Amino acid sequence: MKLSQLGEFGLIKNARDIFKSLNENIVVGIGDDCAAIKLRKGFLLITTTDALVEGIHFKLDYIEPYQLGIKSININLSDIAAMGGIPLYALLSIAAPPNFSVKFMGEFFKGIKDGAKRYKVSIIGGNVSSSKNELSINITILGEVEKKYMVLRNGAKAGDKIFVTGWLGDSAAGLAILKKGQGARGKGQEKLINKHLMPIPRLTEGRFLAVKKLATSMIDISDGLASDIRRICEESNVGANIFTKNIPISRELKSEIRNPKSEINLALYGGEDYELLFAVKPEKAGKLKSLWEDMKIPITMIGEITKRGINLVNTDGKAIPLTKEGYNHFKG
Amino acid sequence: MKLSQLGEFGLIKNARDIFKSLNENIVVGIGDDCAAIKLRKGFLLITTTDALVEGIHFKLDYIEPYQLGIKSININLSDIAAMGGIPLYALLSIAAPPNFSVKFMGEFFKGIKDGAKRYKVSIIGGNVSSSKNELSINITILGEVEKKYMVLRNGAKAGDKIFVTGWLGDSAAGLAILKKGQGARGKGQEKLINKHLMPIPRLTEGRFLAVKKLATSMIDISDGLASDIRRICEESNVGANIFTKNIPISRELKSEIRNPKSEINLALYGGEDYELLFAVKPEKAGKLKSLWEDMKIPITMIGEITKRGINLVNTDGKAIPLTKEGYNHFKG
Repeated sequence: MKLSQLGEFGLIKNARDIFKSLNENIVVGIGDDCAAIKLRKGFLLITTTDALVEGIHFKLDYIEPYQLGIKSININLSDIAAMGGIPLYALLSIAAPPNFSVKFMGEFFKGIKDGAKRYKVSIIGGNVSSSKNELSINITILGEVEKKYMVLRNGAKAGDKIFVTGWLGDSAAGLAILKKGQGARGKGQEKLINKHLMPIPRLTEGRFLAVKKLATSMIDISDGLASDIRRICEESNVGANIFTKNIPISRELKSEIRNPKSEINLALYGGEDYELLFAVKPEKAGKLKSLWEDMKIPITMIGEITKRGINLVNTDGKAIPLTKEGYNHFKG
Repeated sequence: MKLSQLGEFGLIKNARDIFKSLNENIVVGIGDDCAAIKLRKGFLLITTTDALVEGIHFKLDYIEPYQLGIKSININLSDIAAMGGIPLYALLSIAAPPNFSVKFMGEFFKGIKDGAKRYKVSIIGGNVSSSKNELSINITILGEVEKKYMVLRNGAKAGDKIFVTGWLGDSAAGLAILKKGQGARGKGQEKLINKHLMPIPRLTEGRFLAVKKLATSMIDISDGLASDIRRICEESNVGANIFTKNIPISRELKSEIRNPKSEINLALYGGEDYELLFAVKPEKAGKLKSLWEDMKIPITMIGEITKRGINLVNTDGKAIPLTKEGYNHFKG
């Protein structure tokens, strides 16, 4: 069945059934003019919105609707992670062409639901609309954070050590494999692909860093290390040296690319890794390493905050200004 | 200059400059991973999101970017009005083709800013992205309301009187004039057009009805009276009789259409009037009329809530089931 047969109100009814929630702080959920929620005292409300547009952020020939649902919610949750916050609620706004199938929408909604459920996030409202050509997804997340724990982009100081969670460049490599089309793929390739299609928000890690007051500034890597370290530096009015040899490259990426320079380029400019990039006071860097032992995702020290200038420091110690950036909408 | 020359980060910088706000409850505004805000104790947070998609909700050959900005914010504020709430903050997500001009975006942002400012709403965050073909606008509004004052769709009871603010059908008539193209237009026609391009959210009226505990249920008319009375009836599990002769038709609409049946059809199915439709206990209906005296926008009693069935009662007293509905996305 097509959306043109089900109609707007049928789709809203489906969404309402799929997303129904028993969270007692939701006073009004999907179905009224607004959602209404009770919030905890002593917390700031944090909120973020992000879009995924067909043909720009994804192509339907390589992403399944369920995966698209997971990705849509997870990339938004990643922004909550980067503040050290706890995600709570989501609003979903979808514009889809009328010839889209109801089945597609059902699987997409299922992905959103499962992605949200994993982090105890309730879908409390939204909007569905038709579009001419493109599927367009907008998600707004609401969450909470204590003011004393909140981590912004602007707190980095010269001397701080720069860390990153997980491995960089995998998502871009996964996308490149997808673009090549179908074919026999190894386990490592599937892992890279999954990193691109269903990135995992580092909520546990971000919250841990915040509550332990370990990070002086933090951001999630959506546009690539080169772009996102620049944002921390600009907001904090500092510089950074990134040590090429320290940038964490996964076994899977190495075996896929087999060219150290290309691997580093994917890490710097590839984007969509949704790992956390953060700065830590030098006297806390040692403590961090021991505190981190029980966490599932590793962290790596990749550089240090300086007074000014953003440089890539090569294995021979040579500092090269890092001027190129990752993906830039409109410019490409 | 095109967006493709300015780039994503240039556009974000422009937005940050335009939307900067001094509201002391905004702990983090535009420019970090999330916005962070302090909320008042004793209030529920209310939130709503709505989309405007080029080619579906608007065409750029008849709406100016400034007007589009005003409309984008106002239709979202209308949902806050329908809950009896106070709007506070907005998040803005825009997807635009790279060949759009920076000037267009500047005027569009100016419209959003002016629309928001009029109701003391601060833009606290958002997202910009490119799109292939269509300009797509998503706005999320955050507001507050006391639980005791909040008005939902589900509170109507048989016997309640049904009221509406302002006049119905003007917006659809304005759109029809716009679609006919340029030409000499009278003052009345300009008024109808403005009602379509820059609808006014009935925030003062909605808040008044809520605080005085006058409305048992309320909705804003976005899809036409026929669709929106159905939503109140379905949520409240009741029916309604709408008296054709009572439906408020403006002088401007009458002089434009000159056919009572067509005028009523525009009121029932035209949509986008963004007037408030609400039910009032019969014993409070008289009091409402006297309390309303100082308000700028009139209200009209257009019918009453019944046990079941939604009917249009003609001037001869004949009740005709109201089955047809207004605009339905995907179905058209």
